Amino acid sequence: MPQSPEINRQIVLNERPMGQPDANTLRMTTADVPTPGANEMLVRTVYLSLDPYMRGRMNDAKSYAEPVAIGGVMTAQVVGQVVVSNLEGFEEGDYVLTGSGWQDYAISDGTETLNLGKSPQNPSWSLGVLGMPGYTAYAGLLKIGEPKPGETVVVAAASGPVGATVGQIAKLKGCRVVGVAGGAKKCAHVVENLGFDACIDHKASDFADQLKEACPDGIDVYFENVAGKVLYAVLPLLNPFARVPVCGVVAWYNLPGLPEGPDMGPVIIGTVLRMKVKMQGFIIFDSFPRSVYEEFRREMTSWIRDGSIKYKEHMVEGLENAPEALYQLLGGGNFGKMVVNVGT
Amino acid sequence: MPQSPEINRQIVLNERPMGQPDANTLRMTTADVPTPGANEMLVRTVYLSLDPYMRGRMNDAKSYAEPVAIGGVMTAQVVGQVVVSNLEGFEEGDYVLTGSGWQDYAISDGTETLNLGKSPQNPSWSLGVLGMPGYTAYAGLLKIGEPKPGETVVVAAASGPVGATVGQIAKLKGCRVVGVAGGAKKCAHVVENLGFDACIDHKASDFADQLKEACPDGIDVYFENVAGKVLYAVLPLLNPFARVPVCGVVAWYNLPGLPEGPDMGPVIIGTVLRMKVKMQGFIIFDSFPRSVYEEFRREMTSWIRDGSIKYKEHMVEGLENAPEALYQLLGGGNFGKMVVNVGT
Repeated sequence: MPQSPEINRQIVLNERPMGQPDANTLRMTTADVPTPGANEMLVRTVYLSLDPYMRGRMNDAKSYAEPVAIGGVMTAQVVGQVVVSNLEGFEEGDYVLTGSGWQDYAISDGTETLNLGKSPQNPSWSLGVLGMPGYTAYAGLLKIGEPKPGETVVVAAASGPVGATVGQIAKLKGCRVVGVAGGAKKCAHVVENLGFDACIDHKASDFADQLKEACPDGIDVYFENVAGKVLYAVLPLLNPFARVPVCGVVAWYNLPGLPEGPDMGPVIIGTVLRMKVKMQGFIIFDSFPRSVYEEFRREMTSWIRDGSIKYKEHMVEGLENAPEALYQLLGGGNFGKMVVNVGT
Repeated sequence: MPQSPEINRQIVLNERPMGQPDANTLRMTTADVPTPGANEMLVRTVYLSLDPYMRGRMNDAKSYAEPVAIGGVMTAQVVGQVVVSNLEGFEEGDYVLTGSGWQDYAISDGTETLNLGKSPQNPSWSLGVLGMPGYTAYAGLLKIGEPKPGETVVVAAASGPVGATVGQIAKLKGCRVVGVAGGAKKCAHVVENLGFDACIDHKASDFADQLKEACPDGIDVYFENVAGKVLYAVLPLLNPFARVPVCGVVAWYNLPGLPEGPDMGPVIIGTVLRMKVKMQGFIIFDSFPRSVYEEFRREMTSWIRDGSIKYKEHMVEGLENAPEALYQLLGGGNFGKMVVNVGT
């Protein structure tokens, strides 16, 4: 069933997953296309963004955002097009960046909605390098990581939208940049197309040794977006006064409970102490003032224009394929920023 | 054998301990009293400071300072008195704060040596509230913890020299202060004499519940000096944007290896992420500029003079009793700043 003007397909949370999500976690349902009231508009989803944080929203646990309710539409940023507008500043045909979630249509009153105009270049990029993942990379690296020329920066998920951007910005700042990614194909892309100095395959049996060899001067900034064994290989390599911006723990999102021991707590906290490490978590939309966002849009737009930042999308066709694509993403099966083409 | 003008008693590292140090870890030996050359002086130890960091110096592992060599004199800050001086700025009879280590006599060329004058008030306090532990508390709390009025500050080892000072400064800054200490006697002292709002006994079986109850608004600053189960009880209570200065992990210093599981890594890093926590390790003499030290001496001297900071010492008699006293300290058996009276 493709997108239609009469039916609003929605993907809702069917049950909270224990560990890995599966075929029962999400389900598709349909509803009427809603009608906008005064000072509202109807937005049709064109592109839907898939991001690792969505796994956290499926849990009932205390997290940095409200969990999705059982039966509720999954949350997501989308790029959509205005179908009907009763709202000043938005016209039929305008592209918008908004938080409609996993559905074909939604009403917006303009809150947290950005008008991208009638014919933006690469509208889906506002879900990636020019949107939340790009901003996460920019602010986390520059405002918490504070890389200095000549320092070594390590970033995992290096071919993903956050990691790829972190590494390219760090190169622009004069750092040695070492990526970590899953598989030879991703690693080759990271070095050859994105210009990292090295990229280590975390699936290699001697991964920790390879990482050590790629960082002969230790690690000054580790941009944490996966945790798990990558973190544990990084800890012994951290230099005095290293900075660790923590933006995600993908390797641990699907944990049904705590992993078996030993308890690595003493290694983590002991390293923080001995190496005088600053480890700081951040959530992109509440950790930085608005001025940082404006600086990001300005700098990133110029870097993309002059070719110093490159960007890769992993496009999936059809809203019905979004659940499977998200599960693939959580297992590292994406190659580039995952976006669902819901209705171009 | 008491202190004598002819013999230099020294306590040296006999073997590196696996886990808990024991009777074979340290041993006493004797040497000649050394003779100072040009631009040197001979210092006689009066008070010897015992501090938890000394356990780390017994290990051969990568740490924040050089390990003590096998057969080498154990390192320590001491307050001593000048016996013979060939050094400008120091006269016979002057009290000095210096790094002589665990021995009766040492030569100093004045490097990292502070002249306290001929008749300082409470000379041993320069090993505590006016020295390294006091400065650790001051800089760690104020420069990394950044407590704001009305916030909740939690500090473990609350009757020790660092914890007691952290809590009293936090009270001066208008915070709710909750201590953690071992046993009813220490807890009573912390509340009644030091003015903390509450103090929880970590030996209580329902310690985590009691801590939660004492922090109804969560925790904004956790001054980390013990780690272990106190840390694990604190993590679920941390508020968004909490700060965790990490200055010690006493509970883990004697670990012979990593503790059994589960692996608490996901809880530590997950909390840092979700709560946007800043966790930062520091080593007092290389994490802050000199100006912070001067600010500390000025403010702390005035707080002590006007009675707003109180200080308690645990005095041990005789150099020969120092090893046993250190082991006691590592097990939380001290009550106040542990100092050895070597030769008053």
